[in-house]
Amino acid sequence: MVHHNITNPWRTLSSREVYRNAWLALREDRVIRPDGAEGIYSVVEMRPSIGVLALNSHDQVAMVSQWRYAHNKVSLEIPTGGSNVNEETLEAAKRELAEETGLIAKNWTFLGTIDNSNGATTDVAHMFCARDLSSGPFTQQADEQTELCWIGFEDAVRSVMTGEITESVSVAAILKTELLRKGFEVSWGAKLQD
Amino acid sequence: MVHHNITNPWRTLSSREVYRNAWLALREDRVIRPDGAEGIYSVVEMRPSIGVLALNSHDQVAMVSQWRYAHNKVSLEIPTGGSNVNEETLEAAKRELAEETGLIAKNWTFLGTIDNSNGATTDVAHMFCARDLSSGPFTQQADEQTELCWIGFEDAVRSVMTGEITESVSVAAILKTELLRKGFEVSWGAKLQD
Repeated sequence: MVHHNITNPWRTLSSREVYRNAWLALREDRVIRPDGAEGIYSVVEMRPSIGVLALNSHDQVAMVSQWRYAHNKVSLEIPTGGSNVNEETLEAAKRELAEETGLIAKNWTFLGTIDNSNGATTDVAHMFCARDLSSGPFTQQADEQTELCWIGFEDAVRSVMTGEITESVSVAAILKTELLRKGFEVSWGAKLQD
Repeated sequence: MVHHNITNPWRTLSSREVYRNAWLALREDRVIRPDGAEGIYSVVEMRPSIGVLALNSHDQVAMVSQWRYAHNKVSLEIPTGGSNVNEETLEAAKRELAEETGLIAKNWTFLGTIDNSNGATTDVAHMFCARDLSSGPFTQQADEQTELCWIGFEDAVRSVMTGEITESVSVAAILKTELLRKGFEVSWGAKLQD
C-alpha cells in the first residue's frame, strides 16, 4: 500500500562479537552511516520469540504473572518465550504454552509478527491464537516461576487499554484479536468472529 | 483487576558491565534463580523510548519509512526514538516528532506504555497521540534517513492487521487509538472519538 524506494543506506566495515550467552549475543559493527560518517552500530541478536493467546471455551484468556528481572517488576502477560535453535515458531509456541500453562491446543491461528526494540535488537515475535484447549502434561521449566490465571477476553482488552498489561507481544496479540473478533478481515488469518 | 502475590524470586549476587555505548549498555548479573540454582542473567539497559502517532486534520497519520539496521529491512513506523539522558518523555516525543517530520503539535494525549523484549532489555516505550499539527523548523538528524508519508488512519489500522506494519510501538499506538476512536473509554486518557 505504501511504496518506498529505500535501499540499505548503511555500509558495514567490520563486525566483532562482544558477548554471547545462551539467550542473546551482542555484536558491535563499524559502519558508514547514511550521512557518510563513520561510526558504530551495536546489535543485540536474539532468536525469534513467540506469544500465545490461548482462549478457552468460556472466552477466557490464559494469562501468566511473572517477575521480570530486567524490569524489576511483576508483569501480566500471555505465555511468551524465545524459540530454541532450529525450532519452528509454531513448535516453539506449542512448547511455551505447555511449559507455562500445561495446555495443549488443537486449533492454532497465526496473528502476525511484531519487531521489538528494532533500533537495537533482532527480536521478532510471532503471535498465535490457540483454541480447543485441553490439559497436557505439565512441564514447567526450572527457571520460570509463573502464576497462571484466566481472565475474560473483554477484561484482557480493558487491561491493555488501562495499562495493566504492558508487555508488547501481549498488547499486540490481544488488540489484534479484538479487531478480528469485531469482524476485521485479513487475508492471512482465519476470521475469529463467531 | 488481577491480584498476584509475586515477590522478586531472583537474588542478585554480583553485577558487571560488559559493554556500553551511547545508546545501550549490557550487564551480566550472577544470580540465584527462582529454583535456587545459581546462574547468570544479562540485561540490555536502554533509556525509555517514545512513539508519536501524529494525526492531521485529514485524519491521516504521519508514517516514516526507514532502513532498520538490526533487522536489515525497511520498516514503516510512526516516529519513534530513544530519550536523551534526563529528558522527560513528552519532551522526547516533541523532539522526535520534529526531527523525523518537521512537525509541532498543540494537542498531546498519552496512549500508555509498552515493555519491549522484557526478558532481556529495559526498553520501555511511552506512546502519545499528537494533534493540531503545524510545520516547525525541520531538523533531521545526521544518522536518520527517513521518508515521511501520510496515510489514512483506517489504512494504518489495516496495515497493522495485514502485517505491513510490524514495529511494536507503532502496532500498539495504532490499535490503541483505533479502540479509543471506536469509543473505548479509559480513565487516564482523553477520549479520541469525535
